[in-house]
Amino acid sequence: MPEVTHNPVTPLPRGSGIREVARLAGVSIATVSRVFNDAELVNPETRQRVLERAATLGYEPSSLGRNLVRGRSDLLGLIVPNVSFPLYGEMISGIEDVLGQRGMSVLLASSHDEAASELLAAQHLLRHTVDGGIVVNSQFDAALPAPRSMNWIYVSPEHVKFPNRVELDNGAGGRLAARELLRVGRRHLAYIGAPGRESQDRERGFTDELCQAGLSYRRAGGDYSELSGTWAAEELLDNGAALDAIFVAGDLMAAGVLRALHRRGLRMPEDVAVVGFDDSPLAALLYPRLTSIRQPAYAMGAAAAELSLRLIAGLSAEAESVVFLPELVRRESTGPP
Amino acid sequence: MPEVTHNPVTPLPRGSGIREVARLAGVSIATVSRVFNDAELVNPETRQRVLERAATLGYEPSSLGRNLVRGRSDLLGLIVPNVSFPLYGEMISGIEDVLGQRGMSVLLASSHDEAASELLAAQHLLRHTVDGGIVVNSQFDAALPAPRSMNWIYVSPEHVKFPNRVELDNGAGGRLAARELLRVGRRHLAYIGAPGRESQDRERGFTDELCQAGLSYRRAGGDYSELSGTWAAEELLDNGAALDAIFVAGDLMAAGVLRALHRRGLRMPEDVAVVGFDDSPLAALLYPRLTSIRQPAYAMGAAAAELSLRLIAGLSAEAESVVFLPELVRRESTGPP
Repeated sequence: MPEVTHNPVTPLPRGSGIREVARLAGVSIATVSRVFNDAELVNPETRQRVLERAATLGYEPSSLGRNLVRGRSDLLGLIVPNVSFPLYGEMISGIEDVLGQRGMSVLLASSHDEAASELLAAQHLLRHTVDGGIVVNSQFDAALPAPRSMNWIYVSPEHVKFPNRVELDNGAGGRLAARELLRVGRRHLAYIGAPGRESQDRERGFTDELCQAGLSYRRAGGDYSELSGTWAAEELLDNGAALDAIFVAGDLMAAGVLRALHRRGLRMPEDVAVVGFDDSPLAALLYPRLTSIRQPAYAMGAAAAELSLRLIAGLSAEAESVVFLPELVRRESTGPP
Repeated sequence: MPEVTHNPVTPLPRGSGIREVARLAGVSIATVSRVFNDAELVNPETRQRVLERAATLGYEPSSLGRNLVRGRSDLLGLIVPNVSFPLYGEMISGIEDVLGQRGMSVLLASSHDEAASELLAAQHLLRHTVDGGIVVNSQFDAALPAPRSMNWIYVSPEHVKFPNRVELDNGAGGRLAARELLRVGRRHLAYIGAPGRESQDRERGFTDELCQAGLSYRRAGGDYSELSGTWAAEELLDNGAALDAIFVAGDLMAAGVLRALHRRGLRMPEDVAVVGFDDSPLAALLYPRLTSIRQPAYAMGAAAAELSLRLIAGLSAEAESVVFLPELVRRESTGPP
């Protein structure tokens, strides 16, 4: 077995470290802390004595002490509905990459899409004295609690009243979807939406574009789940009216739409063209590969982290928001360009 | 606009808080800290004076101070290759749920599947004085650095030499896949693997079972990507030998296999049955829905967190590992039971 630093010996009781060092060196805890953080402020003899006692005790200075003196934890709190949702995973990567470059870390908590659990998560993160915080898809009606020195950044479309936001122009996404379906010659369109403002905004953009083309459309509702997409598509197909294109408010729901179309033996895109939303990693893996409206989750996460760093550094005390424009990613479900 | 606690005023310089309070109250920083943490240790008059000065300055006691005294940060460091990979997302959820119940938080860092970046991530987390740490799919050959009081938990199959591990019995997964394909009457089997010990172990279990049935099999190699799955399947199909079943070492690669079979107009499972591995959320969304060997990522994450908490609490100083058994999740790609 190679040399490893693992050492399954009983650890020193960690809390006692700094106290013991201070007692043995005959100085205050604050002095010990200063030796390890702002050494130049300490008398050289005292410094030497503290370092010797620390070495004797095997005391390792912790970032807790350093951070106490600096008044910064170098932690950014992050609340996401659900870590395992791929889009949030990309967003977290963006946040983490920006923070990592500044020596900061992400402190993570899940809201499980529930207001009460989101509030608990926020309180939990604040107990760790995060320097700043980002909340994705907030379900909590009011602003989350925060000390005077901190503002939460909201990455969600519902909180237009809050000063610091990163958001997607969902209306522009709806327009892109409509244009793509019109481009491939479709005239009998439908929208499958879901509750909430995001879907409303996507539909509004879609409608605007169709209106200009003098076209009406049909609609059905789901809840972003795959199964709800299948049901909504079946509802549209059972109706019997002509249908040659469906815009779906989310990729997962679009997976359900594709399944309904497969079951009826309909060809995509020849019989029915489909456009999803989000361009999650799933979109390119579906059969046929799904054309989708790309939500730049990584870039949005990075922007939220940058905005948060600006607030922490005091560079921006004013309200500041960043709006991202979505892009069309064309794949097999609307056919070759 | 409703009442919100957001307050875009210029924040106090945060570091100065505790120092200012100490100066104004004429006491040491340590005394201020004690007032907010172990108030009973402080003379009542001093306590009153500190609290008044703190109120005047708007000083809010931080968990940094409390944690310095306790010697615990209540943070658990977590290193994953890539947050946006769905399986790791589920694992993080499991870790976070266990920690949340104990008032602890996850401090996150990505290794990007690179040893150097993993080492940096570990150093970064240690600077924040995490109480414990979990590293998923470690790429670093040696043990990660750690203070004497801490052991990393490894969630990966490559580090059998390290004392604290959570792992999946990959060989058992390979046996389950072989049994399922034999159950549906297949005799011309193939395995599509990838580099690394996980795939080796899966193949070994698969071989063992086929050997007992007196069957040989063919093999092709990929790299867990979708495209590599398509190429590997095409290689097997081009060979011209009979083929009625493929076991694929990962779901994403299996998505590529399904695509190759669709392209050739082969029916699944009638012409070729397919079994994937991991049972990631993707598996149930593919067309046809993919039978897969379930890696219980959420439970594995929860177990790693529990193990880490036991080590932190000093309940287990010995080497301790948890081995999970995979399960077969039967879907359309091997047909109805």
